[in-house]
Amino acid sequence: MAKIPLPAVDRLCSIYGLLEKLEAQGTKAISSGEIGRNINATNATVRKDISYLGMPSVSGRDYEVKKLKGHISKALQLSKPRRACIIGLGRIGTAILAYEKFKNEGFEIAAGFDLSINKIERIVTPVSLFQISDLEAVIRSRGIEIGIICVPPEAAQNTADKLVSAGIKGILNCSAAVISVPEKVILRNIDYTTYLRVISANISLLKR
Amino acid sequence: MAKIPLPAVDRLCSIYGLLEKLEAQGTKAISSGEIGRNINATNATVRKDISYLGMPSVSGRDYEVKKLKGHISKALQLSKPRRACIIGLGRIGTAILAYEKFKNEGFEIAAGFDLSINKIERIVTPVSLFQISDLEAVIRSRGIEIGIICVPPEAAQNTADKLVSAGIKGILNCSAAVISVPEKVILRNIDYTTYLRVISANISLLKR
Repeated sequence: MAKIPLPAVDRLCSIYGLLEKLEAQGTKAISSGEIGRNINATNATVRKDISYLGMPSVSGRDYEVKKLKGHISKALQLSKPRRACIIGLGRIGTAILAYEKFKNEGFEIAAGFDLSINKIERIVTPVSLFQISDLEAVIRSRGIEIGIICVPPEAAQNTADKLVSAGIKGILNCSAAVISVPEKVILRNIDYTTYLRVISANISLLKR
Repeated sequence: MAKIPLPAVDRLCSIYGLLEKLEAQGTKAISSGEIGRNINATNATVRKDISYLGMPSVSGRDYEVKKLKGHISKALQLSKPRRACIIGLGRIGTAILAYEKFKNEGFEIAAGFDLSINKIERIVTPVSLFQISDLEAVIRSRGIEIGIICVPPEAAQNTADKLVSAGIKGILNCSAAVISVPEKVILRNIDYTTYLRVISANISLLKR
């Protein structure tokens, strides 16, 4: 199979998420145009991304939801289970902690961390909670590969550094700070403000 | 100014968010390569996106953070204030409700909605809260342009339909459902699972 370019990997994951929801809603087939509209890419980009999967071509026909999903999962090894942890148990952190959908997707939230022992004792969850000082030991002993950073911005880089020295493989940064990690660590950022800005810009440009 | 292609609009908003955080952290200049690494696009894509802004070329030189930010803001009309509302006051909805950063970015959360009157009375927030039955009237009377959907998946499409008939211009869908809206309504989806999947796929592919 051809090497899949990195931006295509991200889009294929978005397509996978879309297909999964469509499957749950009972949809059997979808066109590349409809996929593009949902993940906000052009028809041509969607077809190109899917071409990397080495699927038989279905020119002019819709993609079968189930089949396409299977090909993406195989190419990106999405069936591999992974353990993640959440660092920072404020509002967003505890909301993610309670996010039950992860389990069905092969992601196990295996630990939560906070500075405040008071918070750790107060939060009711089946997930094991620890103080930040236990971060490295717990990540190593539980085989945690992904860290979800939900700490205040001023603590984000320090948290990332600790995750990196504990051998973390990927970081989802939900804090409002830019963090730097070595190239071998996969980093993605979630920012609600950016999403609102994207919507706002598109509203303005639609009027032109 | 040339028409900016839609996927470039989204990336320019991500670049804007990055520049804003860099500015807050005291960084004065950044290369297209560093921008690309942060927003997960190639160097060439970043340069191409920036070329749509009609800025004087700075071949081989870093971009000035403040100047580039100003050009993006002007091209995408990001300084225009917008009112948004949150529908569904569960964990994610209330976390977003408390997100203070929006205010500084020109986004005002002007209302929150939930089915449960009990929840509306219990939540402590400066934001006005209403029952879902008031959705259309409140959106119209308060000039709300963006709806943030945080309801359970089975209620998402119905919520979107109500927002559309109230004249909403943009929707941020944080529910775990695919929703359909007319083409004139801007729609973006946030899905934590997709982000974890992106990280997982990249971890797998890094090893090849």
